[in-house]
Amino acid sequence: MPTPPASVRELVDRTLKGDRAALARAISWIENEAPDAAALQDACFTHSGRARRLGVTGPPGAGKSTLITCLVRLYRRRGETAAIVAVDPTSPFSGGALLGDRVRMGELAGDPGVFIRSMATRGSLGGLAVHTAQVCDVLDAAGFSRILIETVGVGQSELEVAQTAESTAVVLVPESGDGVQAMKAGLMEIGDLFVINKADREGAERGAHAVRSALELRARGDWDPPVLLTVASQGTGVEEVVEAFETHFANLEGRGGLERRRRLGLEQLLNQLLRDRLWGAFRAQVPAGQWAEVLDDLVERRLGPNQAAERLIARPVDAEAARSIRPEPARPRR
Amino acid sequence: MPTPPASVRELVDRTLKGDRAALARAISWIENEAPDAAALQDACFTHSGRARRLGVTGPPGAGKSTLITCLVRLYRRRGETAAIVAVDPTSPFSGGALLGDRVRMGELAGDPGVFIRSMATRGSLGGLAVHTAQVCDVLDAAGFSRILIETVGVGQSELEVAQTAESTAVVLVPESGDGVQAMKAGLMEIGDLFVINKADREGAERGAHAVRSALELRARGDWDPPVLLTVASQGTGVEEVVEAFETHFANLEGRGGLERRRRLGLEQLLNQLLRDRLWGAFRAQVPAGQWAEVLDDLVERRLGPNQAAERLIARPVDAEAARSIRPEPARPRR
Repeated sequence: MPTPPASVRELVDRTLKGDRAALARAISWIENEAPDAAALQDACFTHSGRARRLGVTGPPGAGKSTLITCLVRLYRRRGETAAIVAVDPTSPFSGGALLGDRVRMGELAGDPGVFIRSMATRGSLGGLAVHTAQVCDVLDAAGFSRILIETVGVGQSELEVAQTAESTAVVLVPESGDGVQAMKAGLMEIGDLFVINKADREGAERGAHAVRSALELRARGDWDPPVLLTVASQGTGVEEVVEAFETHFANLEGRGGLERRRRLGLEQLLNQLLRDRLWGAFRAQVPAGQWAEVLDDLVERRLGPNQAAERLIARPVDAEAARSIRPEPARPRR
Repeated sequence: MPTPPASVRELVDRTLKGDRAALARAISWIENEAPDAAALQDACFTHSGRARRLGVTGPPGAGKSTLITCLVRLYRRRGETAAIVAVDPTSPFSGGALLGDRVRMGELAGDPGVFIRSMATRGSLGGLAVHTAQVCDVLDAAGFSRILIETVGVGQSELEVAQTAESTAVVLVPESGDGVQAMKAGLMEIGDLFVINKADREGAERGAHAVRSALELRARGDWDPPVLLTVASQGTGVEEVVEAFETHFANLEGRGGLERRRRLGLEQLLNQLLRDRLWGAFRAQVPAGQWAEVLDDLVERRLGPNQAAERLIARPVDAEAARSIRPEPARPRR
């Protein structure tokens, strides 16, 4: 492997030693696509692969952050370290906390074995999933043994982000148990375990039953997702969630599933990096005048979108440029 | 422009005449990326540009579908025709309706001046925004004068989809008025008008006030988004929403804003089409053996992701292939 520049080597060394300031800086490099971010990421990547990546997803208000706080507390008691990556823009971890959440999270924030980071969710389409995967690699390299990724399980790109996780808990409330809705949102397919949180509310058992029924419609595989009841605000039932994650990892490892998931996740990351580079190289070689001209034809409806695309792809994309280019954002902003 | 094949010409002709079966088939071609979808889309596109595209977005449960039903009813009374494109997987228009919604929607479904279509929300990242834009072009070409796009305003890609609209209403309920949360989800930036629905509930005025306060933090432009109160289930306040859309369009047209938004939307579509084609051409020219080998190096952590990408980009991307290729899905599925 080529040697990264000294500034990168130093940041990597400090990150690998668990230096929190270095870690925060490394993550910012990735989020901002800093010039040396790729070298940094590659260097960290080769030291990663030990952490378990747990997804926690579900609709806003399901209590995902409270559950994560409980899970982290339990992992810490078991001697694990934990990083929280909040991709959910409505998460208290992202700063939108009510006072109560802040107080509960306070204890985590003071613990050197815990690291909390929220991801900026604006930016180019696709960028979010790539950044999340890369940030997890850096946290993994920094030695955190559990990485909890919080996503809001409604949108399409959030489902893509959730695929960064090796095992995913879908968190619902009794009322959202209505299996059909969850199924439509793709949550039924993504969940390795299901949690009905706020189970002290009416209808929890009925909600769990609806989820179980919906799961029966899913193609049967090597794993039957359990449906658990919790009241995360009181810590009730959370130990069982930790156990369910452990059991699922044991199941995955026993049949080569963990390796398959990791391979698929890496292929996904590789695809996206390649797409960004090809696009950057292509965009750099289209003369500005030609771009504007074709866009005019499109706006005036003299050309269809596919015809416009064909007109712009007039020459081969330069491989040297694609190898060395910094990717550009996928889309213009209003 | 090159002449499309006869089968495409026939489908386009029937679609332009408003034949509903043809329209449904044309939309399916686009969603399934059928072999002649590009020719079809280009042919329809050159006949589009007359419809107004209205976005209706907001969290699940805000009453977007009920509001859309009311809006369509009012537009019909004004002599307009209307198409509804439901991108929200939890929308009753997508089939997840409670009985009450179905009954209310029944009258729309029987009206020849109304067309309802829900979009499949699984598939490649980016595909959804492209498909939605293309489907709107086809509906526009088919003569619908108002196109209402329903999205759930939480996820990243949904915000991208929402940018297909020329004017967007953000629908909230009194309790979600809490400006900070909405702001974080990017809703404050995307809204041209704001609707506090279910305003017969407690706290509607307070919710409206919170939204107005949050809007004051937004950079002031040429348009101050109004905040309206509705009870869509009773039809209360909906006339004012129609008027607000009209006023916003008049404002946009008066300062060239509509043209700017359309241009940006088309540029976004063009970018995504180009990215898909470049990727398809590239992927087709990498030998399967080399791909697997580099992926092995990545999985074994002998290479970092960026190094792996650089190794695969070994030759220029063939322009002829990129022009003619059918795009492949962006990402593998688990």
